[in-house]
Amino acid sequence: MRIEILCTGDEILSGKTVNTNHSHMARRLGEVGLTVCWGTSVGDDRESLREAFRRAAARADAVIVNGGLGPTVDDLSQEMAAEAAGVELVLHADWLARMEAFYERRGRVMPPNNRKQALLPSTAEFIDNPIGTACGFALEIDGTPFIFTPGVPREMRRMMEEQVIPRLLSRSGHRVATRMKRFHSFGIGESRADHMLGGVESLAPAGTVKLGFQAHYPQLETKLSVRADSEAELERLLAPVEAEVRSRLGTHVVAEDDDTLEGVVSALLARDGCTLATAEMLTSGAIAARFLPGKDAVDPHRAGVVSRDLGQLAAAAGLAAVPGSPDSSAASAIACALRRQVGTTHALATLVAVDEGEDRIELGGTVVIGISDAGGTVTREARLLGGREWVRLGAVELAIDCLRRRLAGLPVDERIDFEKR
Amino acid sequence: MRIEILCTGDEILSGKTVNTNHSHMARRLGEVGLTVCWGTSVGDDRESLREAFRRAAARADAVIVNGGLGPTVDDLSQEMAAEAAGVELVLHADWLARMEAFYERRGRVMPPNNRKQALLPSTAEFIDNPIGTACGFALEIDGTPFIFTPGVPREMRRMMEEQVIPRLLSRSGHRVATRMKRFHSFGIGESRADHMLGGVESLAPAGTVKLGFQAHYPQLETKLSVRADSEAELERLLAPVEAEVRSRLGTHVVAEDDDTLEGVVSALLARDGCTLATAEMLTSGAIAARFLPGKDAVDPHRAGVVSRDLGQLAAAAGLAAVPGSPDSSAASAIACALRRQVGTTHALATLVAVDEGEDRIELGGTVVIGISDAGGTVTREARLLGGREWVRLGAVELAIDCLRRRLAGLPVDERIDFEKR
Repeated sequence: MRIEILCTGDEILSGKTVNTNHSHMARRLGEVGLTVCWGTSVGDDRESLREAFRRAAARADAVIVNGGLGPTVDDLSQEMAAEAAGVELVLHADWLARMEAFYERRGRVMPPNNRKQALLPSTAEFIDNPIGTACGFALEIDGTPFIFTPGVPREMRRMMEEQVIPRLLSRSGHRVATRMKRFHSFGIGESRADHMLGGVESLAPAGTVKLGFQAHYPQLETKLSVRADSEAELERLLAPVEAEVRSRLGTHVVAEDDDTLEGVVSALLARDGCTLATAEMLTSGAIAARFLPGKDAVDPHRAGVVSRDLGQLAAAAGLAAVPGSPDSSAASAIACALRRQVGTTHALATLVAVDEGEDRIELGGTVVIGISDAGGTVTREARLLGGREWVRLGAVELAIDCLRRRLAGLPVDERIDFEKR
Repeated sequence: MRIEILCTGDEILSGKTVNTNHSHMARRLGEVGLTVCWGTSVGDDRESLREAFRRAAARADAVIVNGGLGPTVDDLSQEMAAEAAGVELVLHADWLARMEAFYERRGRVMPPNNRKQALLPSTAEFIDNPIGTACGFALEIDGTPFIFTPGVPREMRRMMEEQVIPRLLSRSGHRVATRMKRFHSFGIGESRADHMLGGVESLAPAGTVKLGFQAHYPQLETKLSVRADSEAELERLLAPVEAEVRSRLGTHVVAEDDDTLEGVVSALLARDGCTLATAEMLTSGAIAARFLPGKDAVDPHRAGVVSRDLGQLAAAAGLAAVPGSPDSSAASAIACALRRQVGTTHALATLVAVDEGEDRIELGGTVVIGISDAGGTVTREARLLGGREWVRLGAVELAIDCLRRRLAGLPVDERIDFEKR
C-alpha cells in the first residue's frame, strides 16, 4: 500500500515551521508496518492544492492530508476536497453543536468564522477530533482514499492513533491491534545493540514483531513494533521477545516506554526515602536540571552546586581543602562533603576536564564521578571523545546512570561504547 | 520565479530524520525575497526520483535537490540527474584529487566508494563544497535549472549561502548582495513588535529592505533582509532602518546578530573584571547552564547553587536565617549572602513559585529576582502565566535580562508582555 503524506500551509512550505508533522506521521506508519512513498508540501493556495490532490490521487493508494482545516480564509482543505471530489460542502450539524458546546464550556461565544469548520464535502465520512475544533474527514478523490487531519500537532497525533492508523491498517489488510514497546539504554551504540539483539524477532511468528532503533545520543531507543489480531494475541506475541531484549541489553537498559533515566533514579531514591544533592563542574547545572519536578513527580533532589572552577566547587560543597586536580579522590571528597553539608542521603559529584585546544570532533575529555551514600563512596572515571558538547552530554548521562546503578545494586564501572581507553 | 525544494532520502521520507533542511532552505530563500512554491520528499529509489525530477521540471522555474550525493549505493542523485538530462556520468578529476587530499590530511586513505562522489553528469557545472566530500552541481533537466546540494546540514547551509542563493538571485534578476540583520529582544511579543516597527521599511527605497519576525519564546528575533547591487549600497540602505529598529525596540534588544543574551552579559561582566554567582529555585541550573563556556569565551560565572527548597537554597547560599517565603526580601538576602560566600562581584538569585494544581495553559507562577553587587541590591518581581514550562523558561530569561539591565545601567523593572498584573 503506497501512502502519500501531503502537508499544506504557508508556514510549512516557507520553512517558518519545521515539518515535524510529516516525520511523526511517517514514523508512526512505519512502526505499524505501513510505508510512506511520497511527501508533498504546498502552500495555502487553490491551484497548488488542486494539482497536489490530483497528483497524489494518481500516485498513491492512500493519501493523508495535514492542515488547512482551521477557521480562517486561508484554510482551504474542505473547499478543495469538495471541488476535487466533485461534490458540495454541507453543514455537519452535530459537529457545529459540539463546537458551540466546546466554546460554551469555556464561557465564550463561538466566533462566526468557526462555522466553516463544520462544512464538509457531502460524500465525506466525519472523523472525530476530541480535543479541538478541526474535525477530520475521509473521502475518495479519483478513486483514491484521502484522510484529512488537523495541523495542530497534538490533535493530529491523537487522530493518527485513534482513527487514521486503524483505518489504513484495516484497508491494507494488516492486523489491527498494534503496540510499540520501547527500551531506553545508555552505553551501547546502535550497531552493537543490533548485533546483541540478532534473531530476537524470530521468537515470534514471522512478520508480527519488528525490531528497530533510534539513536538520541547519549541514549539509544530500541523499539519492538507488534501487530496482531487482538490485544490478547499481541501480549502473547510480545512477551517472549520483550523478555529476551530486556535480558540481552541487561544492565544498560535505563528505562522503558515513557519512563526516563532521571525518573527511574528519582523513583529509586523515593522508594527508600532517600534524597540527593549534586555537584557539577563544567556540566553547569545540566544534571540538576534533569531532576526538574513534574506535576505529581517525586522530587528527591534537594540542592546542587555548580562551578567550572574546582576550588570554587569544592568550597561550595563545603570542602575545606581545595583538591589539586579533578580526579577520583576530588570527586569522592566533594561528594562526601556535599552530602554532609546539605544533609541528604546521597550526593553525586561530576567533574569534567575537557582537553585544551579548538573544539573539534577529536577533542576529548575526562569525566570523574563520585557518589557518596550511607554505604560509602564509589567513583567512576571515563575518557570520552567527540568534541566539547558531546563530552558534556555524555558526562551528564554517565553521572545519572552511575547513580542509577548504585541505587539498583549494579556495577558502576561497566565499560560503555562511547568510552576510549 | 517558482522554486521547488526536492529532498531525497529514506531517512527524511520515513520520518526518522526531521526535515530541517527544507525549512532552512525555504526560510533563507524567503529572506532574500525568493519564493518556494512546492516541496517534495522522496526515498532513495530510482522510480520515485525519476518521477520527482520530471514533475519538478514541469512545475518549477528552478529546483533545488537536497541529498543523495554520498558514497553509498543508495545515493542516487548523480546517476538519476544524468539519466534525466540524457547524458553520461564523467569523472571530475579535480574533485577526486581534492577528496584524496582531504583524506590524506587526516592521515587516511580514501575508501574506493568515495570515487563515486566525483562522477558528475557530463553537462553539469561543478559546485564547490569546501567542508565535505559531496560536491554540488547544477544542470538543466527538460529546460529547467536544477541545483544539487549535499544532505549534511552544515555543508548544505554553506553551499546555500555561497552558491545557491547568489545563482538563484542572479537568475531571477534580483539584486545580488544580500544581508540579514538580526535583533534579539526579550519582553515584547510579535504583534507588539510589529506595531512598534510600523513603517520602518519605508526608510529605504521600496523593495530593498524587508522586515520579518521569528518568535522563539521567550525571545523574539526581528530580521531585516536587505538586497542591493553592491555591499556598499547595502550598507547605505540598511543603516537608517537598522538605527530606527534599534531605537524603537530600545532597551528590549538583548543582543544582535550572532550574539546572545548570555554572551552580552558575560562580556559586560568581563569588561569590568566582574564575576558572577547564581542561586536558582525551580529553574534547577538552567540559568547557570546558559553560561557554559565556549572555546575562547569569557567565563565570569564562578559558582551556582540550585535547590527547589527555599530553606536548602538559602543555606547553600550561606544565609543563616531561613526566609519565610520566596519574596523580594528573600531574593535579596540570598543574593547578598551568596555574593559574600563565593566572593564574586555580582550575585543573581532567582526564586520561582509555580501555582498549585494540574499543569495547564492557565497555570501561573511568581518570579522573584534579586541582584547584589557593589552598588547595592535590586529586586524584580513578575507574575507569568502559561503553564509550568513556560513560566520556567520565562523566569530564566527574565533573570538574565535583569542582570543585563543592571550591568548596562538600564531600569530592571520595565514591564514585559508576558507579565500579568
